[in-house]
Amino acid sequence: MGVKTDQSSYYNKYAYTCLLCSILVNLFLSYNLFVSKKCSLSWSTSAAAEAEAVASISCSGHGRAYLDGIVVDGKPVCECNTCYDGPDCSTYIPDCPADANSGDPMFLEPYWMQNAASSALVVTGWHRMSYIFSDHSYTSQELEKSIRRLHSIAGNAVTEGKYIVFGTGSTQLLNAAVNALSLYNSSTPSKVVVSIPFYPDYEVQTELFATEHYKFYGDASLYKNSSDDSTNVIEFVTSPNNPDGKLRKAIFNGPSARAIHDHAYNWPHFTAIPHPSDEDLMLFTLSKLTGHAGVRFGWALIKDKTVYERMSTYTNENTFGVSRDIQLRALKLLNVVLDGDGRSIFKYAYGTMRNRWESLSKTVSLSTRFTIQDISPSFCTFFQNVRGPSPAYAWLKCEREEDDICYKVLESGGILGRDGILFGASSQYVRLSLIKSQDDFDQLLQHLKKLVLQEDGATREDM
Amino acid sequence: MGVKTDQSSYYNKYAYTCLLCSILVNLFLSYNLFVSKKCSLSWSTSAAAEAEAVASISCSGHGRAYLDGIVVDGKPVCECNTCYDGPDCSTYIPDCPADANSGDPMFLEPYWMQNAASSALVVTGWHRMSYIFSDHSYTSQELEKSIRRLHSIAGNAVTEGKYIVFGTGSTQLLNAAVNALSLYNSSTPSKVVVSIPFYPDYEVQTELFATEHYKFYGDASLYKNSSDDSTNVIEFVTSPNNPDGKLRKAIFNGPSARAIHDHAYNWPHFTAIPHPSDEDLMLFTLSKLTGHAGVRFGWALIKDKTVYERMSTYTNENTFGVSRDIQLRALKLLNVVLDGDGRSIFKYAYGTMRNRWESLSKTVSLSTRFTIQDISPSFCTFFQNVRGPSPAYAWLKCEREEDDICYKVLESGGILGRDGILFGASSQYVRLSLIKSQDDFDQLLQHLKKLVLQEDGATREDM
Repeated sequence: MGVKTDQSSYYNKYAYTCLLCSILVNLFLSYNLFVSKKCSLSWSTSAAAEAEAVASISCSGHGRAYLDGIVVDGKPVCECNTCYDGPDCSTYIPDCPADANSGDPMFLEPYWMQNAASSALVVTGWHRMSYIFSDHSYTSQELEKSIRRLHSIAGNAVTEGKYIVFGTGSTQLLNAAVNALSLYNSSTPSKVVVSIPFYPDYEVQTELFATEHYKFYGDASLYKNSSDDSTNVIEFVTSPNNPDGKLRKAIFNGPSARAIHDHAYNWPHFTAIPHPSDEDLMLFTLSKLTGHAGVRFGWALIKDKTVYERMSTYTNENTFGVSRDIQLRALKLLNVVLDGDGRSIFKYAYGTMRNRWESLSKTVSLSTRFTIQDISPSFCTFFQNVRGPSPAYAWLKCEREEDDICYKVLESGGILGRDGILFGASSQYVRLSLIKSQDDFDQLLQHLKKLVLQEDGATREDM
Repeated sequence: MGVKTDQSSYYNKYAYTCLLCSILVNLFLSYNLFVSKKCSLSWSTSAAAEAEAVASISCSGHGRAYLDGIVVDGKPVCECNTCYDGPDCSTYIPDCPADANSGDPMFLEPYWMQNAASSALVVTGWHRMSYIFSDHSYTSQELEKSIRRLHSIAGNAVTEGKYIVFGTGSTQLLNAAVNALSLYNSSTPSKVVVSIPFYPDYEVQTELFATEHYKFYGDASLYKNSSDDSTNVIEFVTSPNNPDGKLRKAIFNGPSARAIHDHAYNWPHFTAIPHPSDEDLMLFTLSKLTGHAGVRFGWALIKDKTVYERMSTYTNENTFGVSRDIQLRALKLLNVVLDGDGRSIFKYAYGTMRNRWESLSKTVSLSTRFTIQDISPSFCTFFQNVRGPSPAYAWLKCEREEDDICYKVLESGGILGRDGILFGASSQYVRLSLIKSQDDFDQLLQHLKKLVLQEDGATREDM
């Protein structure tokens, strides 16, 4: 009986302890289920679960699935990086050329995957259905505030005393700017000029949309001396320049010269920032800042009120301003950029681009057949030190006379670049994009190494 | 001892029962917390919680808060409907004019609030950063599929054998279409014409963006007889028409005449659908279908491959295609529209617009001072019955000679409409928007009733 009681008392104590533990677990679970944020969701739950399910589809690190991807067997399929294939992108395609053609800024994708929680966005079905914001404008005041804060952190542009116009990508703003500046004097069409080498879209776009007020003339140097003061000149000044990464200044400065400063690449990612740019008309794009080319968001900082109004009229008549969805997404992304001290994306982007440039430079330095542009280290006000180059593109030259169509030389070596002739230069040059995915860059480097190895004098050990 | 044992045994049994229950509760909670969808969220949780918190801000049914609204005290403030004010939009502003000016399709906002769960969208930070989709195009194949399905349900347009170009709103496609059609013959500029009354943006936009290939001429009837076959004509045909809701046909039919059929309002919401439209170039917009004007999404159905390619080139050069975020949102919304039998939004929209038209007609019928357009009931292939009119706008006429500037007459009566002269008509006409929020419509009706009451012969009882 004594043993039994002891045993029973032991079991009882055990039972009570278990009960206590179980109740504590109950409380903990209940808290998590009903009180903590995590489980108090209602209408957003299924959309969130759907997005997480798609995001969790494994594509072997060589691709990713998207919510709006092609659906097979009820779920979106992996979309693989170049040269990868298979349902989970794990198959490497042999003899696949490295694609270094486009300026697709996918090098920042890993940054956003690392910041999944802070950069996620939940949009209600009734989000901003109206044409206008509550101040009757087409533009988000919160987004404008974030842009001004960002420039003050990056130190790359003066926003004080500047108006802001949003664009559906800075692409839309290029022609909006030309249009706005050309209207000052309608008696003769303004000459749209740019120094060689230049971003091809200036030419293609300006020619397609040309009104009677302006005309694309191209090579700025041809008109520098012949141009008298009575001719309006609109000069595209891309700084740092696409394709060669050089900092540039306007070469026309007369009373009838106006410049569009395309600062797409004017971020610590790609260049040392010498001082905040304070030009009359500056263009920026989300694409080369956060890597979101697909979002299509850009902005112009404008000093002159009339130019501001004309550019606003252009974007308003063209697309009724910028989609509220684009503005919402841009705001979310910029606010992640501004989190903390607002420096993390710049460090990440510079680190990546700097590494890529160093690897590429090392390879090209072993070659006598190929050269790339020389950019000197210089003092960067953002990093507060002298820093090496980290441009978005390599502007590669084939040095041999017989290699006069350089992109074909590269193509036969498994590298797809962009012909220099498209930039107003000669076909001895090729632009190679360094801002695409790591896979793209790795393939580029691998093929370039092979090409350099084929030259006399270079040995495998040097690689 | 016996009592004690009984009691102890009772407590023990009780404890074991409690333990068992507690364990079952634990299992239930664990299932909900870890297994069921609801609580298995990770990175999307805080964004979802944030969106739900903003959506739950109470604005008294006369406004709503948005995620990207102006932030005061750490959270976005209510954005109130016209004539409402205060932190929760509960204050009615006395002597506030009814704003019936813009074509802001807010009448559909309640529909989306009712479909909160299915229309919610969760976007990852790394969603479609690239310029291109996996097929190297700028356009979502899934979205194109949804658009084709939608037209086949609505029965309003033939999509078989048609190409699709997406636009940043149909606004962008208006000029893209003019541009594409004008290039057929560059020796003389094409005449861009339209029948009166017409949507003012055709004129404003065409004049702002005019190239050497086309020119806005306006009133189609002026050129109908004078125009010989050698002159290219590009005719805007808006059917149903904005502002008067009438179905329209092209009046130019010669070999050098081309038409842009603007079918923005060609949905069962606003008109009986006589048959699927099968024109060479048709434009549609999300704005007047789902009410999402702010999203900026439109599409063109195009028969001719060359026109398709030219319009694609236009949108590609203008904005690098349509933002991937716009396409994602449009896909989500269209898929909600297509849910079930795909008829629910049409029933809802027609019901609302029909009620509004009946209320307005009843009021105007008591007036001799004001008239509105007459639209006959007709057979609708979508509803398979003869249905009454439900146009997007009232095209109101001031009948008294002294009321020659009609919008001023209405303005003094507390109604803001759009002057007929902007539509190429006379100032005896005013366009009144019927597609705004219920508050806007209620205020319009209230002020109109007052105006009519001021006329001789009308009595309060008739109202």
